[in-house]
Parts: sequence; structure tokens; C-alpha cells
Amino acid sequence: MSHARQMLETHPAPAQIDVDALVACIDACFDCAQTCTACADACLVEPDIATLVRCMALCQSCSDVCVATGRLLSRQTEFVPGLVQSILETCRAACRTSGEECERHAHHHEHCRICAEVCDVCAQACDALLRALPA
Amino acid sequence: MSHARQMLETHPAPAQIDVDALVACIDACFDCAQTCTACADACLVEPDIATLVRCMALCQSCSDVCVATGRLLSRQTEFVPGLVQSILETCRAACRTSGEECERHAHHHEHCRICAEVCDVCAQACDALLRALPA
Amino acid sequence: MSHARQMLETHPAPAQIDVDALVACIDACFDCAQTCTACADACLVEPDIATLVRCMALCQSCSDVCVATGRLLSRQTEFVPGLVQSILETCRAACRTSGEECERHAHHHEHCRICAEVCDVCAQACDALLRALPA
Amino acid sequence: MSHARQMLETHPAPAQIDVDALVACIDACFDCAQTCTACADACLVEPDIATLVRCMALCQSCSDVCVATGRLLSRQTEFVPGLVQSILETCRAACRTSGEECERHAHHHEHCRICAEVCDVCAQACDALLRALPA
Repeated sequence: MSHARQMLETHPAPAQIDVDALVACIDACFDCAQTCTACADACLVEPDIATLVRCMALCQSCSDVCVATGRLLSRQTEFVPGLVQSILETCRAACRTSGEECERHAHHHEHCRICAEVCDVCAQACDALLRALPA
Repeated sequence: MSHARQMLETHPAPAQIDVDALVACIDACFDCAQTCTACADACLVEPDIATLVRCMALCQSCSDVCVATGRLLSRQTEFVPGLVQSILETCRAACRTSGEECERHAHHHEHCRICAEVCDVCAQACDALLRALPA
Repeated sequence: MSHARQMLETHPAPAQIDVDALVACIDACFDCAQTCTACADACLVEPDIATLVRCMALCQSCSDVCVATGRLLSRQTEFVPGLVQSILETCRAACRTSGEECERHAHHHEHCRICAEVCDVCAQACDALLRALPA
Repeated sequence: MSHARQMLETHPAPAQIDVDALVACIDACFDCAQTCTACADACLVEPDIATLVRCMALCQSCSDVCVATGRLLSRQTEFVPGLVQSILETCRAACRTSGEECERHAHHHEHCRICAEVCDVCAQACDALLRALPA
């Protein structure tokens, strides 16, 4: 269990956005960063590696985007809605793209099945937080 | 001098986008990641630290976005135009936001003046690459 | 809850090290990366910011080391014991250094108290994994 | 060309270590982070991908370590010699391990040949900075 909620609740600046949606999104980003890194690595030793090229490439980039997004969302001191919106859209796009590709391999590889689920959770968490942004 | 161009030219998959604009953007992203990290750190020991809070917070996030963008652009195997467009827009927004804040302190702090310039170069490199994206 | 254990258990290469200690360390690294980023940001808006300079600087670096360590540990395909040992020693040092500084502010700032605890958990998880490494 | 030197020279805290060696190491770290990410991606589309598994896995981790090292070295406010020494040893180990593997493929793949060189430069820059550390 992460400490994202405790850190938000003890931050001297009040959160500018729904805390439940924010915590869910931060947690999802770090979980997805870890899972995508692990999935790309696991693909490397599958016998059908040649069919997993797109999966590995997309998971690498999704992991990078999730780390950046998780860190930005962890900072509440200077909340710039336009920037938060933009990175959430990027992260949602990265997670959807990776998740769809992992889903194609879900029947053959359990790590791809799990990764597809984690990407989907993260994409949805980004989407929910986007809807919670001040208009 | 970076090896971004050599790596692109020896990549077995052809670049999907103008190589000059791509190299310029990759180099700008890593330079901006380094500069923003250094600027946020330098601000910590300025006597007027209390006026530099926004500068430090924005530079931290800009650095994170630049690392992610520089890495995504370094991968040519699975070029997803929609995802590249989205992260370039995010990176341009992050660089503009940081650069404008650094510019406000440029007369007092040389590191802010340099950082404002580097952010501006990176924002322009993102913008140029966005215009080079396939429609 | 992270998916680190599930990803390790479905990885086609067997883990080269005790899985419980590995999962605990991966989870601690990502949790500490998030917490240190949040703590450094929270310090920025404390009235006694000038006394928190060392805390902010160390938390930033601890977060960077934790991201790198969490990612390296998430890869099992090419397990290089000497490299794993080295980054675990670095991460333990970073977490101890940050944690000790945060502890000094724990009575004034709840976010520092939590961060000190999370750093301590991560340092101990690195230590436990170091002891589990093949001799 | 990076702005690492200018940022160090305008930092309000004096560098705790030889500036030439420090600049060289910061630049080498970010260059190596970019090159290793690009090499791992290029390997994905080589016909002999199955022989490049170790290369891709090591390059991914080397890139992560280089980003963390480049960022830590960019911060001069709280210079903790023991931590700097530890991450430099980790980075040197990561670069040597990646570089040796890339070297094995240098005759077949230009990107591996370039990456081996860049890893070697970074390992040497870490080594030089380690020797410049205060005893």
C-alpha cells in the first residue's frame, strides 16, 4: 500500500482536485510503471519474442510516461491545470496503446494479461482524474 | 555532443519523421532535463528562496517530462503518431510554464536566465517536431 | 497493492533471488520514490522552508535512485549480481541519508515523519535483499 | 552541447569536486541514457533479435542508472560524498556491463558499436570522478 493519500493529507497546500481520484491515479501510475517494465523484460525471454516487439516497445514508453505522470501528480505546490490535463491525456493514450497490444497476447502470456489489466486501470484512473479537473 | 543522430541513422527502422527536427528535440529534452534539475537545486541555496518556490516546483516537473519525452523520441521501432503528438504537447507546455517562471528571475539569478533559455529552446524544438508530424 | 509479485511469478525466467524479499524491495522503492517526491514538494510551502533545504535536496535524489532501483529489480532476464548489489547499496545509502534528515523534522511536519518511515522501510528492504543475494 | 558547465558555474554553492570531471560525467550520463535507450529499441527490429536479449536488458537498466546518476550529479546543494561514490560505482558497473555486451555485437550492428563506445566513455567518466572525490 502506498503513502500517497497520507502525503496529500499532510501537505501544507490543499489539494486542488478530488483527493480520491488523485490518489487512485498516483497509485495506478506507479503500479503501471513497474508492471510495464516487468512485462517488457518478461517478453525478452519468451520463445515467440519476434511477435512481441510492439509489446516491448510500447511497454517501455508507457513505463516512462507513467513515472513522469506519477511524479507530477505527487506535487501539489504549483498545480497547473493545463499541464496536468496534458500529461493525463498523454498517460491515458500511452496506457491504452500498451494495454491494447498486451491484450492481444493475453491468451499466451500471463504477464501480458496482467499488464493489460494494469494499463486499463491506469487509463481509467487518468480518465477519471481528467473529468475531475476544474473546467 | 550527443549521439542521437548516429543512433537514428544506424537504427534498422527508418525514422518516421524529419531527422533534423527529431535530433534537435531529443537533444533539447535531455539538456532541459539536466538544466531544470540543476536550476531547482541552485534555487535551494538562494537567499530569496521564498520567492523561488514556483520556479523550483515547475522545474522539477519539467525535468521529469523532458526525460520521458527524450526517451520516447529515442525509440523509433513503434512510432505511434498520436502518442508522440500528445507527449510533445505536454513537453512544450511544461517547458513554456517553467521557462516563463525562470524568466521572471533571470535578472537576479544567472541560473534562472540560462534555464529560461534552455526551456525556450526545448519548447521550440517540440513545436517544430509537432509541425513535422504526419497529418 | 502492486502487481510486482504476480509479474515475477509469471515471468518466464525464474527469479534468481528470494521472491518475498524481492517483492518487498520493489514495492518499497516505488513507494519511497513517490513519498520523497511528495515530501520535497510539501517542504516548498512550509513557513520554515529555509531549514528544509537539505531535506528537499536529499529527497529529490532519493526519489531518483528509488525509481532506478525499482526498475532494475523489476527485470529478471539478465540478473547481474554485482550490479544489483551495487544499486541496492546506493539505494540503501540514499534512503538512510534522506530518512535521517526527514526524521529531524518529524516533530514539526507530518509529511517528514511519514517520509522518514518510508525511507527507513526502503533502506531495510534493500538491506534484506542484499543479504539474500547469492554470495 | 549541454549547459551543465554553465549551470555549475552559476550555482550559488561552490562545486565540491573538480568541475571538469563533473561536467564530463554529467554529460556522459545523459548521452549514455539516450544512447542505451536507442540501442535497446534498435535491437528490437534486428533479424537476430534472439541473440540480443542480454544487450537489450542491460541497456535498459544502464539507461535508468545513467538518468539517476546524471541527476544526482547535477545537484550540488547537498553533496554527500558517500552517496555520490556509491552511485558512481553503480553507474560505472552498469556502463561496463552494457558496454561489454554491446561490444560483442559491434561487428554486426553499428548501433551496438556506437553504444559500446558511449558506455565506455561514461564508465571512464565515472571512474575519473571517483578518483576526484575527496578522500
